[in-house]
Amino acid sequence: MSSYTIEEIAQALGFETRGDASLRVTRAAEPGAAGPDDLALAMSPRYAEALGQGKARAAMVWPDADWQALGLSAVILAPRPRMAMSGLTRMMDRGQGFAAGIHPSAVIDPTAELGEGVAVGPLAVIAAGAKIGAGSLIGPHCYIGWDAEIGENAFLREMVSIGARVKIGDRFMAQPGARIGNDGFSYVTPEVSGAENVRKTMGDQAGAKAQAWVRIHSLGAVRIGDDVEIGANATVDNGTIRDTQIGDGCKLDNLVHVGHNVRTGHDCLFAGQTGISGSVEIGNNVVLGGQTGVVDNIFIGDGVIAAGGTKILSNAPAGRVLMGYPGVKMETQTEIYKAQRRLPRLLKDIAALKKAVSKLGSTE
Amino acid sequence: MSSYTIEEIAQALGFETRGDASLRVTRAAEPGAAGPDDLALAMSPRYAEALGQGKARAAMVWPDADWQALGLSAVILAPRPRMAMSGLTRMMDRGQGFAAGIHPSAVIDPTAELGEGVAVGPLAVIAAGAKIGAGSLIGPHCYIGWDAEIGENAFLREMVSIGARVKIGDRFMAQPGARIGNDGFSYVTPEVSGAENVRKTMGDQAGAKAQAWVRIHSLGAVRIGDDVEIGANATVDNGTIRDTQIGDGCKLDNLVHVGHNVRTGHDCLFAGQTGISGSVEIGNNVVLGGQTGVVDNIFIGDGVIAAGGTKILSNAPAGRVLMGYPGVKMETQTEIYKAQRRLPRLLKDIAALKKAVSKLGSTE
Amino acid sequence: MSSYTIEEIAQALGFETRGDASLRVTRAAEPGAAGPDDLALAMSPRYAEALGQGKARAAMVWPDADWQALGLSAVILAPRPRMAMSGLTRMMDRGQGFAAGIHPSAVIDPTAELGEGVAVGPLAVIAAGAKIGAGSLIGPHCYIGWDAEIGENAFLREMVSIGARVKIGDRFMAQPGARIGNDGFSYVTPEVSGAENVRKTMGDQAGAKAQAWVRIHSLGAVRIGDDVEIGANATVDNGTIRDTQIGDGCKLDNLVHVGHNVRTGHDCLFAGQTGISGSVEIGNNVVLGGQTGVVDNIFIGDGVIAAGGTKILSNAPAGRVLMGYPGVKMETQTEIYKAQRRLPRLLKDIAALKKAVSKLGSTE
Repeated sequence: MSSYTIEEIAQALGFETRGDASLRVTRAAEPGAAGPDDLALAMSPRYAEALGQGKARAAMVWPDADWQALGLSAVILAPRPRMAMSGLTRMMDRGQGFAAGIHPSAVIDPTAELGEGVAVGPLAVIAAGAKIGAGSLIGPHCYIGWDAEIGENAFLREMVSIGARVKIGDRFMAQPGARIGNDGFSYVTPEVSGAENVRKTMGDQAGAKAQAWVRIHSLGAVRIGDDVEIGANATVDNGTIRDTQIGDGCKLDNLVHVGHNVRTGHDCLFAGQTGISGSVEIGNNVVLGGQTGVVDNIFIGDGVIAAGGTKILSNAPAGRVLMGYPGVKMETQTEIYKAQRRLPRLLKDIAALKKAVSKLGSTE
Repeated sequence: MSSYTIEEIAQALGFETRGDASLRVTRAAEPGAAGPDDLALAMSPRYAEALGQGKARAAMVWPDADWQALGLSAVILAPRPRMAMSGLTRMMDRGQGFAAGIHPSAVIDPTAELGEGVAVGPLAVIAAGAKIGAGSLIGPHCYIGWDAEIGENAFLREMVSIGARVKIGDRFMAQPGARIGNDGFSYVTPEVSGAENVRKTMGDQAGAKAQAWVRIHSLGAVRIGDDVEIGANATVDNGTIRDTQIGDGCKLDNLVHVGHNVRTGHDCLFAGQTGISGSVEIGNNVVLGGQTGVVDNIFIGDGVIAAGGTKILSNAPAGRVLMGYPGVKMETQTEIYKAQRRLPRLLKDIAALKKAVSKLGSTE
Repeated sequence: MSSYTIEEIAQALGFETRGDASLRVTRAAEPGAAGPDDLALAMSPRYAEALGQGKARAAMVWPDADWQALGLSAVILAPRPRMAMSGLTRMMDRGQGFAAGIHPSAVIDPTAELGEGVAVGPLAVIAAGAKIGAGSLIGPHCYIGWDAEIGENAFLREMVSIGARVKIGDRFMAQPGARIGNDGFSYVTPEVSGAENVRKTMGDQAGAKAQAWVRIHSLGAVRIGDDVEIGANATVDNGTIRDTQIGDGCKLDNLVHVGHNVRTGHDCLFAGQTGISGSVEIGNNVVLGGQTGVVDNIFIGDGVIAAGGTKILSNAPAGRVLMGYPGVKMETQTEIYKAQRRLPRLLKDIAALKKAVSKLGSTE
């Protein structure tokens, strides 16, 4: 295991040190679990409380921390704690240990083009015409489809699959089991179906004719920008005619589903198990909490934020903060929740009022 | 890339043409993005508006479109646009490019039986006693379990897994990472558990005895009809004693979960991330929107439709259209939603009423 | 197929028999579908009704069943039916037929350590430094990462992936496509983001600065206790600094997501598609119904039970039974639901009251 001096870490992150900056640490640790060779992460007074339960000599602390009173010998001063975490964890990440080079068990079509320094893990398959940019790392058991393109410096964990004709930018990262380029879920019935009727009438469909579903194939694929990350077992479907699109810098968490024809702007964040139906247009910097659902064919403006579990059933203007099912403004939803909890009592109040009013009426 | 004349496409779909039907096109495109060799899809006036931004000479349009006024040289007249999309996309689908024949890296047990023309992709595994019907295509990295049976003309994308003893009909289609025949999620505690108690009392369970879970194994498997499609990373569990059953023509979207012992009729459609708990009985032509949840041991009648996000907590009669959590008739839910948004204001109204009535009472 | 006498089954389960205990059966069956060589499962009068539709001669019944009146020749008396199911199904489970030994197509790093009797399926990959305990069965296409450790008697179905440095106890069971040790979903922006602001203000964020997301890497891994089972395509993420932890005896269903830094006690049960955000602390014996969502950084006490679809947005004390979005006490939620359905009518009542009161006021 490699080790670093406090000085080396601080320089890499651009931060100041106090105390003995030549002290060496081998890993980062939570304050209460830190040993004498660890760098404790105590970037707020709340976390620093646990330092006494550990044995840390060095820590990363907030700028005006009284580090000597905390019993430390050396500290790094971190102005914005989570930004500091980013630099520190990138520096100390030991990774997955995927080997360089092409593993002999990988099955690579002779027409595939691999850039300089591409690594391909054991039992990966790269299909005809696929192109992989320089410095990319294709993990064990991955599948890269026909004519698919992946940019430079990609990192694919094990068992990722990329369908035919999918195009992906640089620095792509995919967690295990991510599926890009699945056929879209699109069917039609020969005659108007009950489900189509409901969109107009909302009424029950007991008389609807029973029909079989006919498939609409996906002629489009998926196009993904630069710096995109896709979570474990997440799924992104092909477009019907044109490509489904994920913009630069978007991050999709585990088990997220993105339907056919969806188009997102840049720097969106979709948390775990979020589902986006077909043909949704999403702006830039949109943040959807875990288990958010978005109905098909709507528009989500720039900077929209949805709390976890929100079901977005209609267009959302830029900057809107949503919550609930159906999703409404978070402030409104909070008031609704409060009122709901008072509902049972309210019913009694109204019953009492009715009685009182009726009595008043009869005494007139 | 292959090309088609307007005449060839129209004949294959059974539609009429207008203009120069000998014009050749190579692919379908959205009106605004169509080039001179594309067939623009402009089956409604709304879509046709964008034709001016593209360079299409040929388009598929609605029956009485004034195609010459739209600047087109040749058109195909499509009476029901989405049905036309089905035929057209099937015709133009370039597929995934999976090769014919058995890839030498596939691991196939000598007791497995493969029908005529079966293709098996690189690094697929076919276990002892498995049977694959003629014309089926088993994608790269697939696993077909012990004694499993798949009918004719199946198409399995990469990394699909089919467990032991699963039986599947003809024309089966599975997207990447679909999992059929997982063990059911079924446990029991030696004594009655808090979770069992709640079904009766609904009260808090602070006094419940802490117990370990004992597994109930799945002796059944999964039986799937003809023309079924299963989405990417979707999961269908084995039955406990008998098989879990998916009827003919059912379509399951990505990340859908079907629990043990579930039984569905034919032609159901379950959209993305829908979850069906154990032992649910589902009729024919049931449509469940994305992220629908169905509680265990209930009955969903023929033709039931649930809006996205619905949590179905009790039996649903045939033809019922549901929405909300808990799912109630869509019409009722829509009224509830409207009333909810008025709730905060309602609370003020009632407070005012109380004051007014109390004042009236005291003035008597 | 093996067969058992009624006596053998009863002895293995510790139950009593009545009638001809030498009768042989080959499998368990539902009463209505049971043949003459099956053991019908009729542990309640409701299930026993269907015996007449089948041909069972032997059955497992409730303790004081009048088995002769049910037309049976031999019975096993089961005091707690589901516990009986556990023993019986374990005994009769034919399994997946995974072969013993190391398949020649598996790719095993020479530095990996495999205990006695470990079986490794075709095309599995075991990375450098991995340790697998005696008697464990690693299915086809599995991936065991760098320095990962799995205890004794594990059973991994096909295509399971275990990331670097993950540590797992004994008797681990994983369904197809389960993903343990994915990178956590953790990002930060250089300056305070709209999503951070919302946690304080709840207001719309139209003026929020558009920023790109910077990754916080996962230095921790996942630590899993003994007797844990993980469902198909479920995902468990690495911790940021320390390990994410799943306690002894926990059972996670298909498509469940457990975020980074989560820590659970022992014997929890998370049903299908449940999602747990980062840094949640969960007690012992917690039961979360299907599609439950848990917001980040909260605490769920021992024995908490959540109904399917519950969104838990704040700390839950031990023993609490929750339901709804947001999750509140089940009793409260049930009253809220009832009141909600009366809401549209309530609005009319209040309008009428207002009119009556105003009339009363004017007549004074």
